[in-house]
Amino acid sequence: MLEDKNQARTALEKLGEIGLIKHLTKNFGLKQKSSIKGIGDDAAVLDFNGKKAVISTDLLIEGVHFDLSYMPLKHLGYKSVVVNLSDIYAMNAMATQVTVSLAVSNRFPLEALEDFYAGVAAACELYGVDLVGGDTTSSTKGMLISITAIGEANENDLVYRSGAKENDLLVVTGDLGGAYMGLQVLEREKEVFKVNPQNQPDLEPYSYIVERQLKPEARKDIVELLKKLEVHPTAMIDISDGLSSEILHLCEQSNVGCHLYEDKIPLDPTVISTTEEFKMDSTMIALSGGEDYELLFTIDQKEFPKIKGNPNLTVLGHMTEKNMGAHLIARDGTKIPLKAQGWNSF
Amino acid sequence: MLEDKNQARTALEKLGEIGLIKHLTKNFGLKQKSSIKGIGDDAAVLDFNGKKAVISTDLLIEGVHFDLSYMPLKHLGYKSVVVNLSDIYAMNAMATQVTVSLAVSNRFPLEALEDFYAGVAAACELYGVDLVGGDTTSSTKGMLISITAIGEANENDLVYRSGAKENDLLVVTGDLGGAYMGLQVLEREKEVFKVNPQNQPDLEPYSYIVERQLKPEARKDIVELLKKLEVHPTAMIDISDGLSSEILHLCEQSNVGCHLYEDKIPLDPTVISTTEEFKMDSTMIALSGGEDYELLFTIDQKEFPKIKGNPNLTVLGHMTEKNMGAHLIARDGTKIPLKAQGWNSF
Repeated sequence: MLEDKNQARTALEKLGEIGLIKHLTKNFGLKQKSSIKGIGDDAAVLDFNGKKAVISTDLLIEGVHFDLSYMPLKHLGYKSVVVNLSDIYAMNAMATQVTVSLAVSNRFPLEALEDFYAGVAAACELYGVDLVGGDTTSSTKGMLISITAIGEANENDLVYRSGAKENDLLVVTGDLGGAYMGLQVLEREKEVFKVNPQNQPDLEPYSYIVERQLKPEARKDIVELLKKLEVHPTAMIDISDGLSSEILHLCEQSNVGCHLYEDKIPLDPTVISTTEEFKMDSTMIALSGGEDYELLFTIDQKEFPKIKGNPNLTVLGHMTEKNMGAHLIARDGTKIPLKAQGWNSF
Repeated sequence: MLEDKNQARTALEKLGEIGLIKHLTKNFGLKQKSSIKGIGDDAAVLDFNGKKAVISTDLLIEGVHFDLSYMPLKHLGYKSVVVNLSDIYAMNAMATQVTVSLAVSNRFPLEALEDFYAGVAAACELYGVDLVGGDTTSSTKGMLISITAIGEANENDLVYRSGAKENDLLVVTGDLGGAYMGLQVLEREKEVFKVNPQNQPDLEPYSYIVERQLKPEARKDIVELLKKLEVHPTAMIDISDGLSSEILHLCEQSNVGCHLYEDKIPLDPTVISTTEEFKMDSTMIALSGGEDYELLFTIDQKEFPKIKGNPNLTVLGHMTEKNMGAHLIARDGTKIPLKAQGWNSF
């Protein structure tokens, strides 16, 4: 009964996070009449009598997903909820409830958890969702957060990753790369602080990107906007791991290829100046940075007039035949295959 | 922005697990039309067009909730799902889906996670629920599991903790104390193993209680049985922390007291012999042991003929006026106030 040390070992690194969950769950079928969509999208869809329920869950670990040395606990509570709501909006659904579970070691006083829940409350208030469950328990090391977000939508409004068609336009909201560059600035200040704790960092020039990292927002407004504009995306996903990785998800699940134009990628001026300061390539950051929580979706070309000129929306390219693959069309016209360089915790 | 070490500190131990979640969530209200019941019961109840959705979530941490030195990973996967389903059945609802998230350090090979998911699959199969979501990620230490269970019920079938009335009968399913005594046996074998790794433990005489600890079952059959018998409990809860603590939950939320008769507490012969062997008091073990995952419910006295003589159900006592408090009536007739001695992770 005690652990056998001589078992066959396959390193987790070999599969990566997405391969692992796919591998582990490949034998699970759906049996319940109310299970419409299981693993494989941003959220599961359940049918409770006409209206669909949408459920998404996430596990966040200190030292893996967040660093409390620059992440205030209130922001962490806020962000933990927001990143889960983002998955619900990525289904073109409206978030309605969340559950929040927290495990902490005894180094955390009550006030720290109060700060965390104040952030949870602020997110619930702004997005109009109810906290309806959860758990607090002790951990042997650090802080762990588990969130489940629940939403609802009419069946016809739901958008999956799998509906993109050849010639559909690829559209993104907001701008990209900010959250990752905010993290770079915070990491640098942490190193400075270690050497000289008296140093007061001036984060003012970086406030936009630091906020993108510490207090991201989910695009509930876009779900409302698309409804108002009567635009029905054919496929949608939220950008948590980076543009490149999310495009590849859409291509794989929709059986299409993609042309992404480098010169169309929306970048905030702060992202451009900070990538220059850090001697990084801004396109690479937008492609692989992650944590922007913008929405990436495809629409039929006929819908283009409805979104044309909208400052929230940028057309990045178009979907192609599957055999053409997924490529970045660089400013000089060269075609570079897209790779999933998104964040991978293993 | 960096952590201030001189903040006011209130020790978490002061509040305990239940007080803490109550304290932290006291300012959250319910706003969504679909939020029927939030924090404070075994599961949250959501209304999606007539049929109610029931959601429950749990976070399990290695070294706090389980010990891998005697808990095989397949059993752990099975148990993690089952203990969550138990919360759904405790609402008199039928479990329909689960989400399972897992964080592991790099000491776990793929095969270990496969074992874990084999247990998840076995539980899903036996209870007829679909796995519809989840996450795998790395941890900095040990294994962490987060489960959300979802169920459905007609509004009239749902049973809360708050509906018990004075003079209602208190009923429990199965027998109590087995899971805790199973744990004692496993802990003892672990100590023996440390001293002499060649020793092969003979667990045969303890097989019932070891199975109660390693492979507990949730009482889906009882929800079906109550429906068949046309018995509608006035209040219900599952026994995760021990009989005493669960009775106090029912009393508090229903505003009643309770008389629990010591001589009625159902005990398996293995529990009786093992408590004697360990020089423990079997009543104390049933009251405080926990992890039995039996259902504890109250019914109107008029319903008694429907359950009389059923081998699955034992009447333990009855509810009283609130002012009379909650007491154990010992075999010699003395009244002993019940205390929550259940498991508390802080």
